[in-house]
Amino acid sequence: MKVGDYVINRLAEEGIDKIFVVYGAANGDLIDAFTRTNKTEYVATMHEQGGGFAAEAYAKIKGIPGATIATSGPGGQNLLTSMGNCFYDSIPCVFMTGQINSQFLRPDPSIRQVGFQETDIVGMAKPVTKYAKMITSAAEIRYEVEKALFIAKEGRPGPVLLDIPLNIQKQDIDPDKLFGFDTVAAQRSWNLDAVDAAIDTYLADLAKSKRPTIMVGGGVRLANAVDDLVELGEVLGVPMFPTWNALDVVTSDLPQYGGRIGTYGGAGRNFGIQNSDLLLAVGSRISGRITGGNIHSFAREAKKYVVDVDETLLQKHLQQVPLDVNVLCDAGIFLRRLVARAKALRANGGLGDHKAWLSKVLDWRDRYDPVLPEFFEQKGTVHPYAFVRKLSEMMKGGDIVVGDCGGNIVVTSHAFETKRGQRLLTNNGNSPMGFSFAGAMGAWFAAPNNQVVCIIGDGGMNMNIQELQTFVNYGVKVKTFILNNHIYGITKAYQETNFNGRAEACGPKGYAPPDFVKIAQAYGVKTVTIETQQEMEAKIAEVLAADCAVVCDVNMHEYHTYEPRIFGWKTPIEDMYPYLPRDEFRANMLIEPLDDWQNPAYPDVVQKKTLDP
Amino acid sequence: MKVGDYVINRLAEEGIDKIFVVYGAANGDLIDAFTRTNKTEYVATMHEQGGGFAAEAYAKIKGIPGATIATSGPGGQNLLTSMGNCFYDSIPCVFMTGQINSQFLRPDPSIRQVGFQETDIVGMAKPVTKYAKMITSAAEIRYEVEKALFIAKEGRPGPVLLDIPLNIQKQDIDPDKLFGFDTVAAQRSWNLDAVDAAIDTYLADLAKSKRPTIMVGGGVRLANAVDDLVELGEVLGVPMFPTWNALDVVTSDLPQYGGRIGTYGGAGRNFGIQNSDLLLAVGSRISGRITGGNIHSFAREAKKYVVDVDETLLQKHLQQVPLDVNVLCDAGIFLRRLVARAKALRANGGLGDHKAWLSKVLDWRDRYDPVLPEFFEQKGTVHPYAFVRKLSEMMKGGDIVVGDCGGNIVVTSHAFETKRGQRLLTNNGNSPMGFSFAGAMGAWFAAPNNQVVCIIGDGGMNMNIQELQTFVNYGVKVKTFILNNHIYGITKAYQETNFNGRAEACGPKGYAPPDFVKIAQAYGVKTVTIETQQEMEAKIAEVLAADCAVVCDVNMHEYHTYEPRIFGWKTPIEDMYPYLPRDEFRANMLIEPLDDWQNPAYPDVVQKKTLDP
Repeated sequence: MKVGDYVINRLAEEGIDKIFVVYGAANGDLIDAFTRTNKTEYVATMHEQGGGFAAEAYAKIKGIPGATIATSGPGGQNLLTSMGNCFYDSIPCVFMTGQINSQFLRPDPSIRQVGFQETDIVGMAKPVTKYAKMITSAAEIRYEVEKALFIAKEGRPGPVLLDIPLNIQKQDIDPDKLFGFDTVAAQRSWNLDAVDAAIDTYLADLAKSKRPTIMVGGGVRLANAVDDLVELGEVLGVPMFPTWNALDVVTSDLPQYGGRIGTYGGAGRNFGIQNSDLLLAVGSRISGRITGGNIHSFAREAKKYVVDVDETLLQKHLQQVPLDVNVLCDAGIFLRRLVARAKALRANGGLGDHKAWLSKVLDWRDRYDPVLPEFFEQKGTVHPYAFVRKLSEMMKGGDIVVGDCGGNIVVTSHAFETKRGQRLLTNNGNSPMGFSFAGAMGAWFAAPNNQVVCIIGDGGMNMNIQELQTFVNYGVKVKTFILNNHIYGITKAYQETNFNGRAEACGPKGYAPPDFVKIAQAYGVKTVTIETQQEMEAKIAEVLAADCAVVCDVNMHEYHTYEPRIFGWKTPIEDMYPYLPRDEFRANMLIEPLDDWQNPAYPDVVQKKTLDP
Repeated sequence: MKVGDYVINRLAEEGIDKIFVVYGAANGDLIDAFTRTNKTEYVATMHEQGGGFAAEAYAKIKGIPGATIATSGPGGQNLLTSMGNCFYDSIPCVFMTGQINSQFLRPDPSIRQVGFQETDIVGMAKPVTKYAKMITSAAEIRYEVEKALFIAKEGRPGPVLLDIPLNIQKQDIDPDKLFGFDTVAAQRSWNLDAVDAAIDTYLADLAKSKRPTIMVGGGVRLANAVDDLVELGEVLGVPMFPTWNALDVVTSDLPQYGGRIGTYGGAGRNFGIQNSDLLLAVGSRISGRITGGNIHSFAREAKKYVVDVDETLLQKHLQQVPLDVNVLCDAGIFLRRLVARAKALRANGGLGDHKAWLSKVLDWRDRYDPVLPEFFEQKGTVHPYAFVRKLSEMMKGGDIVVGDCGGNIVVTSHAFETKRGQRLLTNNGNSPMGFSFAGAMGAWFAAPNNQVVCIIGDGGMNMNIQELQTFVNYGVKVKTFILNNHIYGITKAYQETNFNGRAEACGPKGYAPPDFVKIAQAYGVKTVTIETQQEMEAKIAEVLAADCAVVCDVNMHEYHTYEPRIFGWKTPIEDMYPYLPRDEFRANMLIEPLDDWQNPAYPDVVQKKTLDP
């Protein structure tokens, strides 16, 4: 058996039935191996970036590692953005690159290059992978593939890179005679005594708490613990808030769903989490997008418990505001133990009563929905918030939605209300333009019988538009909705509030999108256009009913405010712009507002004004 | 003055009048600075990769650094392929990335990410840049910008990266009060005594040499020494061979132009360089693409002098086959000193007489032209070699041609005959698909009054097709010829010779190109189609005469042999495939052939045969 065959077979054993590739001579023996297996297939994308994004979404949908193969030099370099995606969003993914023949590699790092398309892809990938290795001997292939797969999945998941020289891909091996990686010895064990002690303390705190909250991050799904989380909600009856990576974990139809949080927040305007006196964060790294710039003000009166698999996040000396209780544990193990103990306490009435508090949070959530009734009355063009809300109403439980970045992901995260069983995903940490289009393609290959919808802006759509041809070559049936406002929306909004209204390189100055309908038709993809809100529902239905790929251009012109949001680095996240009247804001604060609450920060272009004269 | 303004102004002082950007909030103050200068402008491309490739070609045309600006996270990651391009092809280019606010950067490298779109772009870029630095204080900006520019241009040029956090971009500085970088102290001085001694030895060797040759690399143009090289040719009368990076330095119309060399060689089939007894290589790193896999057999009877600015290439212990005389010097300084000394010797008849040898080389060059007369007789479809030769005949002295990679760059390098004053460029070391389309755009911005032609394959064309919109947004007038054979040509050829004819992921299996005519029209770009060779000349004339961008689809179907080429890792480069009859081959060898010359290596799919039965 050749090394190339071993690698492809080993990935197939993992359940990976689609591997995204772009051919190049340096990956020749890896690709040739597909001709000798019927357990996995390659999908040839039109740019390595499209393949990498597809592999990430494939992993997110399947719950197993994704895989992608590029050639040496620019092939691998074109995957680096995708590695960054997987690294920051904790997605297990095996990146493979062909490398030139070992004998032609430069003899010393001081020499830039000897062989054609030689590159130090391992060095370039190290900052955004958990493990990156060039294979230097066929004898180590079994060890390295097993190790790479283990590391990709273990603890906080993430990307790995194997760089395999062409001459090694070709070599014959007997896998049974090769040494392997000892996954049993490497398996991490949790200090369950410490976990249980933390659970006991938490439950004792919960019984005393007046305003408990639970914040849920992407780690819950990565731990395959969505059902455990739902059960926890039922048992505790505590408001739960999803981060953007968990909008399909704490779905909008859960009775404990408390709204959305962070600098772009959304439903509930962060009043729930900010007024909390007890916060349990599970599987979230509590990024700056959650806390806002004024980190000290985040959930400032809450005792904070955080549960994570990534111990680097749990070190108090590295936390900008030290968290009270740091629990190192897999989210699923933690949740199951917490549920079991909580059930026992509940039987004795020992959890406290949080019904009134939950009701208060749900009131904020419903009262402060960013999707306002008047949005549905808009004439002439389509309002993005109205569109996404309508789309979310029309989508079903098993459907998959892939969001992009910038303004359109803010709209999607503000307005899309998720149902249990639905998937809503994007890349949140790296957040590249054009992710959702190639990502939706990967999601479709992972679940070709599901409805897969891509939501994207005009800027992102043109960035990976080459993949329309992959749609055609493979009969991909993704439905793409372009929220087309003809500008780079969120950056233009940023410029207008930060540069006295000067807007450069974002459209119409310096940027204009192409006619996507004509382009999609040129590729041979069905198109639909939504010009006005009045035809929105019928057109969405038409797109969703189609049994083929559809590109739907939604006419939005230059709408470019994404609200509510936080304005200014010092503003606590409970005080979202546009600001509430000060009396209403003050009435919603059950804890003390910050000193300057009566004079919130304003964008340069907005006349300073007093809200309560 | 803000840091952002200082940076943009300093680049403008360098003569950089176009800077390629993609907007993102993290580069906001850098882009806003363009509103306060009329000395440089931004060009907003549709993907950072397009901007990076454009900046590289801009630098190649202008002979000054290129510059490009991306945002943090994926923005910078999308530039990494382009950094690799510039690193391996020695192109000075200033890459700039916005970074998130310093205060939100992760406190420790063990933490993957804290801020949104935070990434360690400096770490990722280090393997492919001469210098990469995150600015940590506004006070160091003058020093760092001056240092980066110096390093980019000094010695062997290359890319540099400055990563500038948003809060630092905004800071006010007084540049006159900031410390700068001492370029005078840093300026390298050459050991001119050693250089002159090497020149004397070389000239003494030349007087005795029967078969001297000069190999010219891209370093000659980088040293701005094209005229010096041409003068050297006149003075010495020695055959000169360009590497692919110097096809527009040793142009095809020079009397000493000896043909093309390397594993894909071309005119002359490498007989000139292989039979040489004295080789002078100037500004070439003598890559594997030149020597072939059997490095010891390269110009094996020649005493070898190599002149380079990169001292790492001149260390015998790092050279796979140690070169005889390694001269560390700028190519221009070396050439001017060599010309001066040679002229003095010539007056005394002290250079030897190499006319007969030059004539022999020119005979090989003309006899072994890869463009065969029968190619022009092809019916039905267009022969790529005939097409490119015809195009080269029709192009003028000041014109610019940008080639891509894979099969089409082999055809271009085989068939395009350059004229003095023309520019023919591609990226040779990294050689990414899709370079030439975005690169031609950058070349046009550098020289908007010149005819700029892009030659590309169908695979590459779809890879950066999004930039068609930049053409529309900025009125770019590039003429693009797609050598459309509907497959990934060179990799399919590779598969057919290496995998017993199995061909995967290269078309028609797994890959098919889109209809480029429809797509270009959808973007609003004029199109021309060339269906047959009979209409080729008139259609080329139509495209070249147009005063606007044109995408010209040239119908080539599945032609995919690129010959002559070297087959096998052991074959010396004088023995190109398809092989000459053995008696003809033997007659051309003035030195001893390698032992196995009567049994050359054949691809798997070709029946082994005896050439001289």
